[in-house]
Amino acid sequence: MTATSAIAIEVAEPQGESLEALETPCLIVDGPIYDRNVARMKDRAKALGVMLRPHLKTTKSTELAAELTVGPDHAATVSTLKEARIFAGAGFNDLIYAVGIAPGKLPDVIELIRGGCDLKLVLDSVAQAEEVAAASRAGNVAIPALIEIDCDGHRSGVAPGDAETLLAIARTLCDGGADFRGVLTHAGESYAALGKDAQRRAAEEERDAVVIAAALLADADFPCRIVSVGSTPTSLAATDLTGVTELRAGVYSFFDLVMAGIGACTIDDIALSVLSTVIGHQKDKGWILIDAGWMAMSRDRGTSKLPVDQGYGLVCDAEGRPYEDLVLISANQEHGVVAIRPGSAAALPELEIGDLVRILPNHACSTAAQHDRYHFVDGGDGQVTRTVSRFMGW
Amino acid sequence: MTATSAIAIEVAEPQGESLEALETPCLIVDGPIYDRNVARMKDRAKALGVMLRPHLKTTKSTELAAELTVGPDHAATVSTLKEARIFAGAGFNDLIYAVGIAPGKLPDVIELIRGGCDLKLVLDSVAQAEEVAAASRAGNVAIPALIEIDCDGHRSGVAPGDAETLLAIARTLCDGGADFRGVLTHAGESYAALGKDAQRRAAEEERDAVVIAAALLADADFPCRIVSVGSTPTSLAATDLTGVTELRAGVYSFFDLVMAGIGACTIDDIALSVLSTVIGHQKDKGWILIDAGWMAMSRDRGTSKLPVDQGYGLVCDAEGRPYEDLVLISANQEHGVVAIRPGSAAALPELEIGDLVRILPNHACSTAAQHDRYHFVDGGDGQVTRTVSRFMGW
Repeated sequence: MTATSAIAIEVAEPQGESLEALETPCLIVDGPIYDRNVARMKDRAKALGVMLRPHLKTTKSTELAAELTVGPDHAATVSTLKEARIFAGAGFNDLIYAVGIAPGKLPDVIELIRGGCDLKLVLDSVAQAEEVAAASRAGNVAIPALIEIDCDGHRSGVAPGDAETLLAIARTLCDGGADFRGVLTHAGESYAALGKDAQRRAAEEERDAVVIAAALLADADFPCRIVSVGSTPTSLAATDLTGVTELRAGVYSFFDLVMAGIGACTIDDIALSVLSTVIGHQKDKGWILIDAGWMAMSRDRGTSKLPVDQGYGLVCDAEGRPYEDLVLISANQEHGVVAIRPGSAAALPELEIGDLVRILPNHACSTAAQHDRYHFVDGGDGQVTRTVSRFMGW
Repeated sequence: MTATSAIAIEVAEPQGESLEALETPCLIVDGPIYDRNVARMKDRAKALGVMLRPHLKTTKSTELAAELTVGPDHAATVSTLKEARIFAGAGFNDLIYAVGIAPGKLPDVIELIRGGCDLKLVLDSVAQAEEVAAASRAGNVAIPALIEIDCDGHRSGVAPGDAETLLAIARTLCDGGADFRGVLTHAGESYAALGKDAQRRAAEEERDAVVIAAALLADADFPCRIVSVGSTPTSLAATDLTGVTELRAGVYSFFDLVMAGIGACTIDDIALSVLSTVIGHQKDKGWILIDAGWMAMSRDRGTSKLPVDQGYGLVCDAEGRPYEDLVLISANQEHGVVAIRPGSAAALPELEIGDLVRILPNHACSTAAQHDRYHFVDGGDGQVTRTVSRFMGW
């Protein structure tokens, strides 16, 4: 999609296999749905007048990263230094490592910066700022850093109005030899915000938090070149990002049942599924056994607190069409138990041993993380159009 | 420990690093605890007069497999064909693939058998037996197969007294050219059996189920050379395995908080932990942020229904000593939130940015599955005695 001249990508395998030739369980991506999701977020960022900096932790693939990113710099977000190393190695040189920095990781950070990657760190304490400044001086490298802002009490970050801490961190960075770049926040609570109105309010809180902090910092002569917000629900719900420079989001390229459950997408927008084979029945119980358990789906039960509990996943036929109320009700390591959702009057479909099914995941990030490749298909035609490798671990 | 002359093992890295030199998050194994756990299960099998066939799905390492297995044949259990390929390649040639066979996997099975691995399949239907028999004839290989017995309604298997189905499967295998070897069961419900008495009853049900099925089959001239039972809780609680030939168990080498929570072990028996670094604080909330989230711990919340809910894990100091009531209360992909367990009056320990902690996992199988290596340490001395690689995926 995007020009990728400076980007090195890795392709896992030749294309053209049929689904029947794949060893189950494995990951399937519906290519046209994925393409539509990727284009939608690019359009959103354009319409909102901000740069898109996609989070690569969902897909963990250099090939897909080249498609998700935009512009000549392919700006992106990562969640581990392994991601930073791999993406920087492939030519993605405008990265934010969006997890609070641990001092023990600074030698690796300096090595990446020296290698040509503009790797921006995130921190929320003077103690971290002192470590980053000391490493900058010792390494003779001005490490770029952003202050994390807490917009919703979800996890880390400085309160947006806590001028004392904000200025102390900025001063420690600037005076100590690091490179203060701005502020960043993430509306983690938006993943539990039911409906567009709640997501729009979360987007406003997210924007307000960084804009307030950036203004406090600018007033004290610490201008913010980067004012970064983002989560998939808020990115899709935001109407006004005045004062923000960039948008981060990750799960939107695949979407999942949690995103559909809160109304951030529809079931038809979910591009990722796990292909699995029927391996048995317990007819008295209305159970169908498949070879996808929690190892293939992950242990994520993110829909358990949403209005519709999807178990460990919603079961579709091999072409990707959901069966009515058919879910993975329980999972062992390599066994899944498929049954009609409790309370539903839907009929159990006739599925024979050896039949293929596709399971939509609760959480695309955690399900994808269990696998080392994606098999792309073109809707329901049963042919693999491309196979893309992904990486795991730290 | 065991003689490994015929077994090829892979060592990941040189030893001798300190914990401080490791990139967090990563897996730590307390070597002396692991050794004691491994020896205990070998002693149990000996005392019960059965062969030990450890399940290698927990550790997924050829080096550890050589230590877990016993005798000249290094008999073992696997949960995927990838495990079968890797362990067979390393010389483990007496394997049971303990997940109901999908017909599409039979060509790979035949290849492994032709390569010298006695790879026994598991099935619970005439349909699967017909497929296995047909593949045996087509490949001119008598594929060895066991009938899975359902001892507790947990997932798959034939009811132990269902003579009609048992005999139909055995007949289909034998008449069709496959190699009927016996029966196998797994007391999956024992992972929810609180206390030794309940676990002993589960062990009796497990034994009774296969012994009844084996007797029915033997009476019809289908003798069972293998009568296989096992789970970690039942293996440790069983007092009499008359009629059983072998014991399977997996998680006992590491143990975890679920096993401790049901009384199958103590917290002191848990050999596996995740090393993590403190990256921040939310002092108003009593939160400590660390760089181990659900990617490092897995999404497993197996203790959520036990008397003591351990969140995403119990937090220990860098030497492995648990802090009082300090748990990982929530987890994002690469962030963990540590706090005192709700309802406890324990004091939050003073942990500074950069300090190391170790998190005991709810479920060792799912936590280990997120990582590609183990760092062994000798108790709390802080030195890595060996680094062992493990594999992922299918």
